[in-house]
Amino acid sequence: MSFSPLFERLVEAFRTLPGVGPKSAQRMALHLLERDRAGGERIVGALGEALARIGYCQRCRNLTEHDLCALCEDPRRDERMLCVVESPADLLAIEEAGGYRGRYFVLHGHLSPLDGIGPEELGLERLEAEVAGHDYEEVVLATNPTVEGEASAHYISEQLRPYEVRCTRLAYGVPLGGELEYVDVGTLSRAFSGRLPFTS
Amino acid sequence: MSFSPLFERLVEAFRTLPGVGPKSAQRMALHLLERDRAGGERIVGALGEALARIGYCQRCRNLTEHDLCALCEDPRRDERMLCVVESPADLLAIEEAGGYRGRYFVLHGHLSPLDGIGPEELGLERLEAEVAGHDYEEVVLATNPTVEGEASAHYISEQLRPYEVRCTRLAYGVPLGGELEYVDVGTLSRAFSGRLPFTS
Repeated sequence: MSFSPLFERLVEAFRTLPGVGPKSAQRMALHLLERDRAGGERIVGALGEALARIGYCQRCRNLTEHDLCALCEDPRRDERMLCVVESPADLLAIEEAGGYRGRYFVLHGHLSPLDGIGPEELGLERLEAEVAGHDYEEVVLATNPTVEGEASAHYISEQLRPYEVRCTRLAYGVPLGGELEYVDVGTLSRAFSGRLPFTS
Repeated sequence: MSFSPLFERLVEAFRTLPGVGPKSAQRMALHLLERDRAGGERIVGALGEALARIGYCQRCRNLTEHDLCALCEDPRRDERMLCVVESPADLLAIEEAGGYRGRYFVLHGHLSPLDGIGPEELGLERLEAEVAGHDYEEVVLATNPTVEGEASAHYISEQLRPYEVRCTRLAYGVPLGGELEYVDVGTLSRAFSGRLPFTS
């Protein structure tokens, strides 16, 4: 049943959000229209601007609306360490865990030849240039503990071999087959401190 | 920690949605920016247009982008019955339960003098004109089974007394103290068929 095509379109649009089913989408649409139109306008403004302006940091490929992200602009970060992650969500999880103060590099995915995702899509040329152009002592390959994540870490460690930088991997405190983004803070922190040399 | 002010603003904006905490809001923002920018544009478009154009139906106060909502425009609805609900969500729940084919009137709330919500805010003048101007045989007062909902139903039944229309109330199959919007379809359908004359 539909009392308004525009309302139906709004409910459909909300269903593209992760974890939002038809009932939640309807509740969100009614909440904004009935009780919080100012909140709705804030979403329109913030989302519209974010989509138009947020792209990749030219150095680390993190999300940012500037040429360089706030982390790359921060002079207090440790220039001797680089942490390679699959997604900005993983970066946020590691930052929340605390303890790591180095740089990041965001792949935005993992190697997946069947989906057409190769070294170019992950910006591995940029990563190699980053390692070649700076004095990193260690590169932490913090990809997800999945088959694809391991394969990506392996590939990168091979690619960085000429630069004589120490490649490490998070300790296997993180649960196998899971998603880094959802690991609890304590486990993630322990995995960081217990990281091991990368061996293929 | 914040790597982008725009990203933070987007996460904050998503938190105004009902049932969305900081972690869900972050997940939504990252999902749209990383994996579904087209979906994000659809939300911006649909929400922007809905906020700009969706208002109240001039006849029944349901949400609509036109003068009259699709239900009021529908000639197949039973003109002899009117169902008064507190919110469009309640209307949608009753439509989903099926069985009712009459008209609706949406209060957008219930009487609540302490919050400054009186007969005027609920459009009760419009409701009286609606009943006065049509040949309704029955008005179902389907307000929520709460103290405020009961009080509103009582007030409306007094207001409509001069028009000699039969005022009914949903059967008490609906759980007391609950919200109509979340009642399961079977219970709601039974409550509709078992409705009783309104006695104050």
